[in-house]
Amino acid sequence: MKILVINTGSSSIKYQLFDMNINKAIASGILEKIGETDGRLTHFADSKTGERKKVVKDGKIEDHQKGLNQIVALLLDREFGVIRDISEITAVGHRVVHGGENLRSPVIINNDVINVIKKNIPLAPLHNPHNLTGIEIAGSIFTNAHQVAVFDTAFHHTIPEKAYLYALPIEFYKEHKIRRYGFHGTSHSYVSEECSKYLKKNLCELNMITIHLGNGASMAAIKNGQSIDTTMGMTPLEGLVMGTRSGDIDPSIAIFLADNRNMSIREIDNVLNKSSGLKGLCGSNDMRDVLQRKNADDYLAKIAFDVYTYRIKKYIGAYFASLGSLDCIIFTGGIGENSSEVRQTICHNLENLGIEIDQDKNNAAGNEAREISVFNSKVKVMVIPTNEELKIAQETKNVIENQGF
Amino acid sequence: MKILVINTGSSSIKYQLFDMNINKAIASGILEKIGETDGRLTHFADSKTGERKKVVKDGKIEDHQKGLNQIVALLLDREFGVIRDISEITAVGHRVVHGGENLRSPVIINNDVINVIKKNIPLAPLHNPHNLTGIEIAGSIFTNAHQVAVFDTAFHHTIPEKAYLYALPIEFYKEHKIRRYGFHGTSHSYVSEECSKYLKKNLCELNMITIHLGNGASMAAIKNGQSIDTTMGMTPLEGLVMGTRSGDIDPSIAIFLADNRNMSIREIDNVLNKSSGLKGLCGSNDMRDVLQRKNADDYLAKIAFDVYTYRIKKYIGAYFASLGSLDCIIFTGGIGENSSEVRQTICHNLENLGIEIDQDKNNAAGNEAREISVFNSKVKVMVIPTNEELKIAQETKNVIENQGF
Repeated sequence: MKILVINTGSSSIKYQLFDMNINKAIASGILEKIGETDGRLTHFADSKTGERKKVVKDGKIEDHQKGLNQIVALLLDREFGVIRDISEITAVGHRVVHGGENLRSPVIINNDVINVIKKNIPLAPLHNPHNLTGIEIAGSIFTNAHQVAVFDTAFHHTIPEKAYLYALPIEFYKEHKIRRYGFHGTSHSYVSEECSKYLKKNLCELNMITIHLGNGASMAAIKNGQSIDTTMGMTPLEGLVMGTRSGDIDPSIAIFLADNRNMSIREIDNVLNKSSGLKGLCGSNDMRDVLQRKNADDYLAKIAFDVYTYRIKKYIGAYFASLGSLDCIIFTGGIGENSSEVRQTICHNLENLGIEIDQDKNNAAGNEAREISVFNSKVKVMVIPTNEELKIAQETKNVIENQGF
Repeated sequence: MKILVINTGSSSIKYQLFDMNINKAIASGILEKIGETDGRLTHFADSKTGERKKVVKDGKIEDHQKGLNQIVALLLDREFGVIRDISEITAVGHRVVHGGENLRSPVIINNDVINVIKKNIPLAPLHNPHNLTGIEIAGSIFTNAHQVAVFDTAFHHTIPEKAYLYALPIEFYKEHKIRRYGFHGTSHSYVSEECSKYLKKNLCELNMITIHLGNGASMAAIKNGQSIDTTMGMTPLEGLVMGTRSGDIDPSIAIFLADNRNMSIREIDNVLNKSSGLKGLCGSNDMRDVLQRKNADDYLAKIAFDVYTYRIKKYIGAYFASLGSLDCIIFTGGIGENSSEVRQTICHNLENLGIEIDQDKNNAAGNEAREISVFNSKVKVMVIPTNEELKIAQETKNVIENQGF
């Protein structure tokens, strides 16, 4: 069975084609700058001999429809293709950011589903509209494939009221569904399952804190395999310091900026999402750059690093208290998987929580799931590479099989 | 030595007159609804025989100046007074909410100090202007007394950058001093010192988490006697759920309310400060009422209680991680001192942090500092009544003595 996973953004489409017999992507790529003159499609394909081929196509890509057609042409291409006919693709799995309160698990897309995703646009105005575009054009191209939506919010549907309600007028929740939803669910869920396999323990017997540190960043408290709290909130702005997002702030700061810098609501929205975080503090949203500058004694880079890591350390404590007991902490995402310095700083001085890193293990490079805590650490500290696309493919497969297709 | 402590709000003046020889208030009261037709002055005085007298004066109080004159008249009153001449008052200690970055300790008020308090008005528009009114009129009445300002923010001046900086564009800090300041400093400081006395241990050897739960509510992480983090931020809105304040929310919610409910910045400010918190969730901002309704199975009251206590539990964990090791947790403020149910719920299932409450001790009523943890609890859990006014009087006395007056 072959499943195409696509993630449609405002001006991009990311895709991976999975062969589910081997649980691996056989082709993948990204289409960027849709609508601009300098559009680019970068495509990778794995041949049967294991060789990896790459092709880059530059030039204007007028719209998402034409872009997806180009992707399909490459998948079918004699040199760079991996399938002979479009009908080989059994299903298309779509990453959809916001499922709201009602879409709590992966689901085969029909008109009702589309209407609910539309209804959730106010909660994710930057994501859901583009995810819908992807669904629409994939439906028109892959006419015989099942279309499945996998939601970033779904894994967090088990979070209890006390953690998802804000202390706001209750009608804000009733009328607008203002509440914590959480995101990165596919990643938190994937690494928690991988951890359970690695430790050879049932997921439902494990209490974990998963720390996804990419350009976006979030943490989840997972009790007996289920998410009971997460740092992102109604939107992906809340919680940790991110590349360009502020994470937690005093909500009065928005009021202050309007009153004292004459900023409009749109400007405030923009600054919190696009000019804050690491970038706001030190000018760079790339952690590799921040680390390099910090280690060359750049003052602002050091501050950015300190604020970033301290926030995560606090949430580890917070979620330890939420969970009551903790079996493991999992680092994932680009920064979580690759920066031993970030991990080391976060876990420093947490011995009283049973958390103790082995420096050598932490410093050793690796692409596989691995333990980096000392052998007698009460809490196991792990690094587990995430694979959201594979998880979406697996979820898509499960849905269509469970529906008896 | 007699010191008058006053706390001037927009339409009220609270006051206590201390006899510093016995470290006790000999008169106290509150003037309410200044400027309205139904103004009221409630005054208490302790006679030398220990008897407590109360007098209430109803009627319009035109302005703060006339109000303070009325208070002085009562302090000098033949029946309800406690002094014979105004010159008996050596100093007036003023509670000032926002000292900003520069006013880091109690200080004798001069023009420079007044200018800095004025400069900080944008950071505390609801408080600093009224505190300044109090300073001005007290200066005109108590012409021979020292005027001292004691700041709510001062105790938190030891918080390090990583905890006080938000991940916002760094120019917001440089130009507007947008950062975490923290409040309730007088209370956090007072109970931490009382705890040190109770335990007969040096303050600088103690790591504590202080939890002030009144109508406003905040927590502090205190390392070796110094504040290293606190839940309130640039303003008193951030952090815990309060009577009418939301505490932490996704900052995007302000944007959402503007976009989807057409609310103005002023309306958003109002709703977050005045119609949120316990009141927003269940309609009542009085925890006694919330508890009664919750225990009669009122659904919204139960939710309000759960959200309120869960937030505090998470911050205990967060500050445990900040501190690295923890000696004691201190509950104070009206709710912290009086609600065993709130304390019990917060501390439930924190045994792995070394926190274990003794139910009987927790349920026992008391007006004194007391321990409520089990005898072998690694972390001592304490209830310590706060006394911000006494602390302001003590600080005032220290300042004038250190200045050699």
